[in-house]
Amino acid sequence: MTKPQNELIENLKQNIIKNFGTPCPVIDLDIVQTNINHAQKLCDVKGLANRPHIKTHKSPVLAKMQIAAGAKGITCQKLGEAEVMVDAGITDIIIATNLLGAAASGRLTSLQRRISLKVCADNPFSLAAYSEAAQQANRVMDVLIECDTGRHRAGVVTPVEVITLARIIKNDPMLNFVGLLFYPPLNGWSQTQEFWKKTKEGLKSLGMSAKIVSTGGTPNFQNIGQLDGATEHRAGTCIFNDLMMIKAGVAKFEDCALQVFTSVVSRGAVDRGILDAGSKTLTSDQSGLEGFGRLLEYPNAIIEKLAEEHGFLDLSKCLNKPNIGDIVRVIPNHVCVAVNMVDQLVAVRGNEIVDVIPIAARGMLV
Amino acid sequence: MTKPQNELIENLKQNIIKNFGTPCPVIDLDIVQTNINHAQKLCDVKGLANRPHIKTHKSPVLAKMQIAAGAKGITCQKLGEAEVMVDAGITDIIIATNLLGAAASGRLTSLQRRISLKVCADNPFSLAAYSEAAQQANRVMDVLIECDTGRHRAGVVTPVEVITLARIIKNDPMLNFVGLLFYPPLNGWSQTQEFWKKTKEGLKSLGMSAKIVSTGGTPNFQNIGQLDGATEHRAGTCIFNDLMMIKAGVAKFEDCALQVFTSVVSRGAVDRGILDAGSKTLTSDQSGLEGFGRLLEYPNAIIEKLAEEHGFLDLSKCLNKPNIGDIVRVIPNHVCVAVNMVDQLVAVRGNEIVDVIPIAARGMLV
Repeated sequence: MTKPQNELIENLKQNIIKNFGTPCPVIDLDIVQTNINHAQKLCDVKGLANRPHIKTHKSPVLAKMQIAAGAKGITCQKLGEAEVMVDAGITDIIIATNLLGAAASGRLTSLQRRISLKVCADNPFSLAAYSEAAQQANRVMDVLIECDTGRHRAGVVTPVEVITLARIIKNDPMLNFVGLLFYPPLNGWSQTQEFWKKTKEGLKSLGMSAKIVSTGGTPNFQNIGQLDGATEHRAGTCIFNDLMMIKAGVAKFEDCALQVFTSVVSRGAVDRGILDAGSKTLTSDQSGLEGFGRLLEYPNAIIEKLAEEHGFLDLSKCLNKPNIGDIVRVIPNHVCVAVNMVDQLVAVRGNEIVDVIPIAARGMLV
Repeated sequence: MTKPQNELIENLKQNIIKNFGTPCPVIDLDIVQTNINHAQKLCDVKGLANRPHIKTHKSPVLAKMQIAAGAKGITCQKLGEAEVMVDAGITDIIIATNLLGAAASGRLTSLQRRISLKVCADNPFSLAAYSEAAQQANRVMDVLIECDTGRHRAGVVTPVEVITLARIIKNDPMLNFVGLLFYPPLNGWSQTQEFWKKTKEGLKSLGMSAKIVSTGGTPNFQNIGQLDGATEHRAGTCIFNDLMMIKAGVAKFEDCALQVFTSVVSRGAVDRGILDAGSKTLTSDQSGLEGFGRLLEYPNAIIEKLAEEHGFLDLSKCLNKPNIGDIVRVIPNHVCVAVNMVDQLVAVRGNEIVDVIPIAARGMLV
């Protein structure tokens, strides 16, 4: 006889707290696999290579699941993340940022000695640092130019600047131009198209071309394939999803693979409760949402603020309210920063604990 | 001939980036020692025992500096923090929270076998869990009752509830009542006095008394000693200080021992810049302040928002603006959460690197 679902979930909660205590971030590998397959299919359908951004999971185990599903390679945000992935045997890597600290510390040189990295730059200073690292490593370095088409983070803001940097790369025997890195705003794909069109012409006049034209972002799944000329897409959050992705319309609750199991540890008043998960677990990343996570068992409860190790529950809108000792499951606002708080994730399939996955690249600042 | 100060700082920056890359959180041990001595003196003057909260530094090395300066013991927020401190030989520990996950997982029992812990509770469920752990450990557990006098976090809200819990403790052979834990709001010391007065009378009627009456918080340094009957104070942030403590009026810039060394990696426009420190370094903890940290070199620059690995600089109010490749030092809003992002802190004295201190209790969720 099959046990009812709520009994199975209660058993899982008890197994989690007995084996790991609370709070405890838990991922469901069945949902993870579904999410990986979904992202791969979105890329396949549009004829784009899939290069998932591992900043979300920071785990070689999960990166290999993505590669097994068809990903061409991976994207890292930090040199230290790439080091961990190379240690695990993954070698087709774009590091999607200006790597100044990693270059100055010699770690870029060391990693370039081991594999042929693809790095990104938006300025001549970075290019000079990469050239020096490539020379020290005795291996030419592949470079993408990061382009800003409206997000105003890093990236050159005009095609003319791309051409200026491409010329520097062309004239440097230790650098090899491989393409462009875009991170278009959700509503910025037409200007990205225009940017790419002008850039392509400029490159052609130099006798150059872009082998890689990369777009990025899980929310951009709604725009994927819209850039004529794009060769690959890099998305991170889609492996787990979170409240931000639900708000962006690219995921549903059942697509959220990570839940933080947390205990109700105090009930100071009828409308108040305290969780043992605070900003050192869920992080203060509010991302424009109400509260700091959603309780699956009490969707009307609001995590109204966080202390370092306390989540403050506003229970005024809940008909039923949790008791001290109850374990609840929280979907975080922003899963990428929540994962980065822990050294491991407990893995389940359905209601069975099946593994503990080290977050091997957690906390890689450089 | 002595080198000028700005040249010494520039040398330090270059030593930091060459040895560790950027971003890199750095503490000055001379300032740390001054801060430790200052907190100790504040307690000494008021005749209070000093029991620093190690949630800020999470390092046995630094806890031992506090004990060497006169601290009676330490305060931890998590069982996992206490485990690390016990491993290092520190045994006089209050864990200042309801420990449900740690109790259910058996880790509370294991640690109670090794030392006599002082734990906190605000409800009978926690007391039952402690009693069971004490029984399994075969050692009576010391318990403080956590009291809420206005902060509305955890804690019982009336003296009557304290007495109810004290009676349960009195009747439980495995529990030993040792006192009360207060965390008074800045303007809540008179109601705390009233709460303590009534509680003391109630305890007396049970033939009980509080050996420990603890107050807490670095901002409460402005109120320290105001509670007649208090026996000790626990403060955490004061070892490093941060922008919150400056705003609270209990520290100045020169008292901030921790600075994040970070590189300017992009300058997309005349008024924009990007740091290589984002929310995975500085955290999204804004704490009601403007921006996400203060640049020592550019006090008019605003870190207006953070991506995971990017700090967005608004340079519109800066006459001089940093260049790509410049290293700047950022004082974080909230140092306790920033320290919890890293596995080590680089330690300097003045402008010399002298040590690397492991944050051994980083990321202890349970």
